[in-house]
Amino acid sequence: MTTQTAQTDAQVRADDRAHVFHSWSAQAKIDPLPVAGGEGSSFWDYEGNTYLDFSSQLVNLNLGHQHPDLVAAVQQQAGRLATIQPSMANDVRGELARLIAEVAPDGFEKVFFTNGGAEANEYAVRMARQFTGRRKVLSMYRSYHGSTATAISLTGDPRRWANDIGDNGTVRFFGPYLYRSAFHSTTIEEESQRALEHLEQTILLEGPGTIAAIIIETVVGTNGVLVPPPGYLDGVRGLCDRHGIVYIADEVMVGFGRIGEWFAIDAFDAKPDLITFAKGVNSGYVPLGGVVISDRIAKHFDDAPFPGGLTYSGHPLACAPGVATFEVFRRDGILERVRDLGSRVVEPALRAMAEKHPSVGEVRGRGLFWAIELVRDRETREPLVPFNAAGADAAPMGAFAAAAKEGGVWPFLHFNRTHIAPPLVISEEDLVRGLGVIDEALDVADGYTV
Amino acid sequence: MTTQTAQTDAQVRADDRAHVFHSWSAQAKIDPLPVAGGEGSSFWDYEGNTYLDFSSQLVNLNLGHQHPDLVAAVQQQAGRLATIQPSMANDVRGELARLIAEVAPDGFEKVFFTNGGAEANEYAVRMARQFTGRRKVLSMYRSYHGSTATAISLTGDPRRWANDIGDNGTVRFFGPYLYRSAFHSTTIEEESQRALEHLEQTILLEGPGTIAAIIIETVVGTNGVLVPPPGYLDGVRGLCDRHGIVYIADEVMVGFGRIGEWFAIDAFDAKPDLITFAKGVNSGYVPLGGVVISDRIAKHFDDAPFPGGLTYSGHPLACAPGVATFEVFRRDGILERVRDLGSRVVEPALRAMAEKHPSVGEVRGRGLFWAIELVRDRETREPLVPFNAAGADAAPMGAFAAAAKEGGVWPFLHFNRTHIAPPLVISEEDLVRGLGVIDEALDVADGYTV
Ligand SMILES: Cc1ncc(COP(=O)(O)O)c(C=O)c1O
Ligand SMILES: Cc1ncc(COP(=O)(O)O)c(C=O)c1O
Repeated sequence: MTTQTAQTDAQVRADDRAHVFHSWSAQAKIDPLPVAGGEGSSFWDYEGNTYLDFSSQLVNLNLGHQHPDLVAAVQQQAGRLATIQPSMANDVRGELARLIAEVAPDGFEKVFFTNGGAEANEYAVRMARQFTGRRKVLSMYRSYHGSTATAISLTGDPRRWANDIGDNGTVRFFGPYLYRSAFHSTTIEEESQRALEHLEQTILLEGPGTIAAIIIETVVGTNGVLVPPPGYLDGVRGLCDRHGIVYIADEVMVGFGRIGEWFAIDAFDAKPDLITFAKGVNSGYVPLGGVVISDRIAKHFDDAPFPGGLTYSGHPLACAPGVATFEVFRRDGILERVRDLGSRVVEPALRAMAEKHPSVGEVRGRGLFWAIELVRDRETREPLVPFNAAGADAAPMGAFAAAAKEGGVWPFLHFNRTHIAPPLVISEEDLVRGLGVIDEALDVADGYTV
Repeated sequence: MTTQTAQTDAQVRADDRAHVFHSWSAQAKIDPLPVAGGEGSSFWDYEGNTYLDFSSQLVNLNLGHQHPDLVAAVQQQAGRLATIQPSMANDVRGELARLIAEVAPDGFEKVFFTNGGAEANEYAVRMARQFTGRRKVLSMYRSYHGSTATAISLTGDPRRWANDIGDNGTVRFFGPYLYRSAFHSTTIEEESQRALEHLEQTILLEGPGTIAAIIIETVVGTNGVLVPPPGYLDGVRGLCDRHGIVYIADEVMVGFGRIGEWFAIDAFDAKPDLITFAKGVNSGYVPLGGVVISDRIAKHFDDAPFPGGLTYSGHPLACAPGVATFEVFRRDGILERVRDLGSRVVEPALRAMAEKHPSVGEVRGRGLFWAIELVRDRETREPLVPFNAAGADAAPMGAFAAAAKEGGVWPFLHFNRTHIAPPLVISEEDLVRGLGVIDEALDVADGYTV
């Protein structure tokens, strides 16, 4: 039985426009690109255009399009046992949980699997609330934690606004962001220390005894590739200890290699109580996410029932490419190559662009995860487009993106930033070529500076 | 690269107990069965025991274990294009959306895809809230809608209790359930009419202008296989029309063939505004769910952005076995065989058991979805085990289940009920054999009657 037939661009567009309702969009105002195929760091449409994927789709495709080992793992598992319910035990599910526990910090042995990142955060928060008997959760402005009710309420970007329809027990604070400091800091040390003071004040004023958890993206992803300054995450740990608060690290975007570590916390000596993941765990070949649970919290649920679950928790077909991901990472030295390419290729290239282009306000990042923050004016740091700009207001970023696509690079865009987040398997040649395209596209952005 | 190795029962148990955190459980009090494989309506463990799967895993495995066409669809799509982001267009995603729209009622053309049932309900509620500008959602006691924040708050069974930590804008009402009528009805007509009166009173007292949606499982699933009485769902439609409320039909469990219809609403002439689905759409071979959207609501989002989304919305690998599901259903006449087996084989067998066994209070259902409600006393209808019983209190149901498993049938259990919900591809011989095992296991239940 052939379920998939070769289609044309027009057919794919017709079905899509007539029948597919898309995320985060006014449906009549979008024009989704029909994608015909992909391989490694590239994908192509039906019209013969190939793009270097500088956003790894939604920063999930860590091992690239159609990685032969991941494809084989999916196909093999489909032939063995596609699915089994969560309350039974399954070999590949147990194996992936063990592999994750092995690379997690000491004292993390158990994994609760979900279908994606939003659910991972939903269940992490639930664990924290059950564990502490408290309700409030603190999260950062400039963050994204997913779109189900708890996750969107934690989110500190404008995607939350239309969903602010009641009290979900969430409170937002300001995180460290030296380039646009909320604390009038002038050095990174000052920013770290003042951001901690601000968090402590927020905790005291909200009432420490009412706060179940603090959730932080270890490196803030979509909202800016904000790398935590030295001491910050350690300070968060200290505040959590002092006040009996659970520290949740959201590593949905940055876990599994994006910055050259299994878990990003390893780069910052952070010690959370719960770690959420998705995306990179299996590059999104099959929907999968989860929570890695510290022993202290896991123990609580030895006798207290955990009040949550989902039909596809620990789905075997999703776990199989997860197991394969570990094999590929180790065999091909993925973490090492991310660190190497990041520091040897990407960082110098971006620093050179920052020198050269008046539209570049700041570049920052780590591994294969970087942001270029575009400004109209380097002095005032006025963003190239206003916060949350849409339509005509966003035109300068649109022009930049069009130039990048023209050059064969599919860029990641958010507000006044472009992020460099290619698959971790990208060849050095492609990486250099893609950075060259971004460099040229910045000429277009330069045209909008004062 | 071999990612999956042959393991032993002991190895699978060891990894599972050490590293897998299970849904809805006190982790130290469970003993998950390692499953070695499955085919059609059966699965087996590592010790040589084979079970006829009378619960289709979590009532998701509509086309059974390892259906060759679904396996082939997954394998083929994995080799073509495992994943692509939601904002692009994809052939198999568009094809599945079109196929779903074709079998949905007139005036439903668009589909929003999610990873599972909870998310489907989260996003249906969000659409209703955005569409109406109102906030409250009404749902039934005795219902299950999933476990993310909105979905668990809608849920009307005890799984909600530990999650009742704040106001999610949800209100519960009583649905029709003649065997244990909340309205002192004695006939099905009376039950239907009184349940509607009760719903209308609830709407009036909550304030019609505050209510965004009413969500109803078309046939209540886990909480009892409660088939709506004639006129009830039509009455709900009338109330929704009168008060500008969105009617959401949750068909996560009963859609895609379970009662012998593409959508269960077809059997009851119900006209919802949004239909949620998951499970049977692809038998859960890859996590997938979604919302089918009526044109009236879809139109609203042509210009108003929909404030929600997820990384894996419309995942190609999940859509491929969905497309194959349509092909198999049509080629093999699945809907027809469900209706035939239900009325010709299951119903008469259950009616005979009800005659014979003092422990059977009522049997009810449709297609391949039936409940046997067990009682201590047929006169008083006292349940065989108390509501939400655990531990020793639940022993009679445990003894019944043990007898069924001993006979080679894996039963679905909930409170004082067992449900008959085998894969829709079950052979008539297996179905008859399995019903015979249930019949014998009821002798054990009879031992606990007064
Ligand atoms: C940091 C972070 N958390 C959570 C999520 C939500 O994940 P999902 O879209 O799989 O629900 C995302 C998605 O981009 C994310 O970047
Ligand atoms: C009627 C109904 N709605 C929603 C759900 C939740 O689906 P999921 O477990 O995929 O989140 C279920 C799951 O059993 C269900 O039966």
